[in-house]
Amino acid sequence: MSIQRGLAADIGGTNTRLALVENGRVLENTIARFRNADFETPEAAIGTYLSEAGRPACASAVIAIAAPIDGPAIRMTNHPWTFSADCIGKVLGGANITFLNDFEALAYSLDKVPTERLQPVYEPSLKLRSNATRLVVGAGTGFNAAALFQTPTGFHVGTGECGHSTLPVETEDELRLWNYLALNRGRASVERALSGSGLKEIHEWYCLEQGLSPRDLSPADIAERANSGSDPLCVSAARQWVTFLGRVIGDLSLVFLSLGGIVLTGGVTRSLARFLAEPEFINAFCAKGRQQKLVSGIPVHLLDDDFAALAGCASRM
Amino acid sequence: MSIQRGLAADIGGTNTRLALVENGRVLENTIARFRNADFETPEAAIGTYLSEAGRPACASAVIAIAAPIDGPAIRMTNHPWTFSADCIGKVLGGANITFLNDFEALAYSLDKVPTERLQPVYEPSLKLRSNATRLVVGAGTGFNAAALFQTPTGFHVGTGECGHSTLPVETEDELRLWNYLALNRGRASVERALSGSGLKEIHEWYCLEQGLSPRDLSPADIAERANSGSDPLCVSAARQWVTFLGRVIGDLSLVFLSLGGIVLTGGVTRSLARFLAEPEFINAFCAKGRQQKLVSGIPVHLLDDDFAALAGCASRM
Repeated sequence: MSIQRGLAADIGGTNTRLALVENGRVLENTIARFRNADFETPEAAIGTYLSEAGRPACASAVIAIAAPIDGPAIRMTNHPWTFSADCIGKVLGGANITFLNDFEALAYSLDKVPTERLQPVYEPSLKLRSNATRLVVGAGTGFNAAALFQTPTGFHVGTGECGHSTLPVETEDELRLWNYLALNRGRASVERALSGSGLKEIHEWYCLEQGLSPRDLSPADIAERANSGSDPLCVSAARQWVTFLGRVIGDLSLVFLSLGGIVLTGGVTRSLARFLAEPEFINAFCAKGRQQKLVSGIPVHLLDDDFAALAGCASRM
Repeated sequence: MSIQRGLAADIGGTNTRLALVENGRVLENTIARFRNADFETPEAAIGTYLSEAGRPACASAVIAIAAPIDGPAIRMTNHPWTFSADCIGKVLGGANITFLNDFEALAYSLDKVPTERLQPVYEPSLKLRSNATRLVVGAGTGFNAAALFQTPTGFHVGTGECGHSTLPVETEDELRLWNYLALNRGRASVERALSGSGLKEIHEWYCLEQGLSPRDLSPADIAERANSGSDPLCVSAARQWVTFLGRVIGDLSLVFLSLGGIVLTGGVTRSLARFLAEPEFINAFCAKGRQQKLVSGIPVHLLDDDFAALAGCASRM
C-alpha cells in the first residue's frame, strides 16, 4: 500500500500546532507548537516547521484556522495573519490545500479522541446516546463551538462564529458587567466574557465594583489565584466566568440538541477546571425552564488534548 | 412507474396541517388544516382527515411535530398531545411512520419553496451564496429554528430547541421586561418573548410601565393595533418584539453561519411583517460588533406559505 503523506496545522489566535500525517493518522512524534508572534506570516511558520522536519514531501495539507472559512482568502478574527491557498501551497511545493475552521477540525476529532483524554465534568445518570449530536466548545483567545452531526452517510460538522453572539445576562449585576464589557464596543458578545481577555475584564470589573483600581493581572494569574482560593476578587471572577460558560453551553446544547454530550476545550476553560465542579457552573448549565430535564441529561467532559484538532485535520485529508 | 402514496402531517402547537403525497410531492388539492383543540388525540385528527379523504391507502407517513424527536414516544412542548409510531400506524393501516421535528421539515422544504413565496425583508447588495447554509426561523405558538446544511452527499438539517435558550437583553429596560417575562418561571427564554403569548406579555409590560392596568388583548389584536399605528402601547410592543427577533436571528446566523440566508415564518412574525421594514429590526439583526459586516451580508425573507413543512415531509418520504 502506498503511503499518503501530508501536513496538518491548527492555527489559533496565539499558537500554531503542526504535525505530519500518514494515511489519515497524525504521527505523534512530529507534533510541534509555535507561537504565532514569532512569525510574520503563517507561511513563515509552516516553512520553519518543514525545514526542522527535514523537508518531507507533502501531497496535501489540511489547515484549521480560527476564522470563518468563506472563500479563497481567509482573515483571522483575533490575529492579523491572512491566508490564501496559493501562498501556502507554494511553501508546500504545490500540495493540495484544504482550509477548515478550527472548531470544524475539533468536532471531526471527537470521533478519534481516546476516552482517557475526556475528563468528566458533569455525568448525568442517563445513558449516553451514541448516535446523537455532540458539541465541542472552546474558550481560549476567543470562543467558539461546533456540532458533530451523524448523518446516514457519515459525519457533518456545523459551526460558525457563535462567540460573536450576544452574551446572555440575567441579573442587574450581570447587566452592569455586560455594560463594562461593552465599553467602546457598543455591545458585549459571548467572547467578550468567555476568553482570556474576558476573564481579565471580568476581574477588572469586580475590582471597580469594590471601589478598587483594576489590577494588571494576566488571565493565568487570575486563574492561579482563583484556584488557590487566595484572592476573593479572582474567585468571584472565576465563578462569574463559569456561570456564563454554563449558561452559554446550556443554550448551545438546546440550539444544536447535542444529546450526545458536550466537550469543553480551550486554555482558559482548562485553567478554571476546578470551578467547573462548583454549583455555579452546573446550575447555570441546567437552568433551562421546561427543558431543564433535557439539558440535565447531557454529559459534559473536558478535553485534555491540546492537539486534538490535528487529528480532525488528518481525518479530512 | 408505480405510484407511492403517503400522508404528510405538520402538527404545530395550535393547528394540524395534512396532505396526501404522491411520489414525494404534495397533492395541493388534498391540503387541509384542523384545529388541534377540536380533537382529543392526533390519531383522531388524522383519522378524521383520512375519512374525509375517502380512506386512501398510505404506505408511509411523515409527521412533523413541534417537539424534540427523541425516542419512539414524543411529547409536545406547547400542547398536551403525545405521539407513538404504533398508535399512529394503526390509524394508517400499518403504514411506515417517520417523525420529524417541525423545523426539520421546514428546513427540508427550503429547497422546494417557489421563489414567489419568499418576500424580501432585508436584501443586502451582496450576491446570495447558493451553496451556503440556510436558516429557517419561526415565531408562532412557540419559537424555533433549523439550519439546512449542504453536504457532499446531500442536505442535512440541524435543529433543536433554540426557543428555550436565554432571551438576550442589552439594556436596563429590557432587563426589567426580562424579569417580567421570567415571573414564576425563574428565567425568560427566547420563546417567552418571541411567540404569541410573548407579544401579549410584552404589551402587558408596556402597560404596567405606563402605570396602566394590563389590557386583555390577544396577540392578533395587538398586531392589528400596532399595524394601524392607532395604539402607541401596541406599537411599542411590536417594536420591542422585532428588536428581539432581529437580535436573536443575528445571533443564530452567527451560530450556524447561515450565509445562504434566513427565512422567517410563523403566524406572529407574519402578523408583524410591517415592523420588519423598520430600523429596529435590521439594526438589531446587524449589530454584531466585529462580525457586523458578515451578518449584514445575509438576506432575510418572509415565507408566505403556511403549508411549506408538508413539502419538507414529502421530500423525506
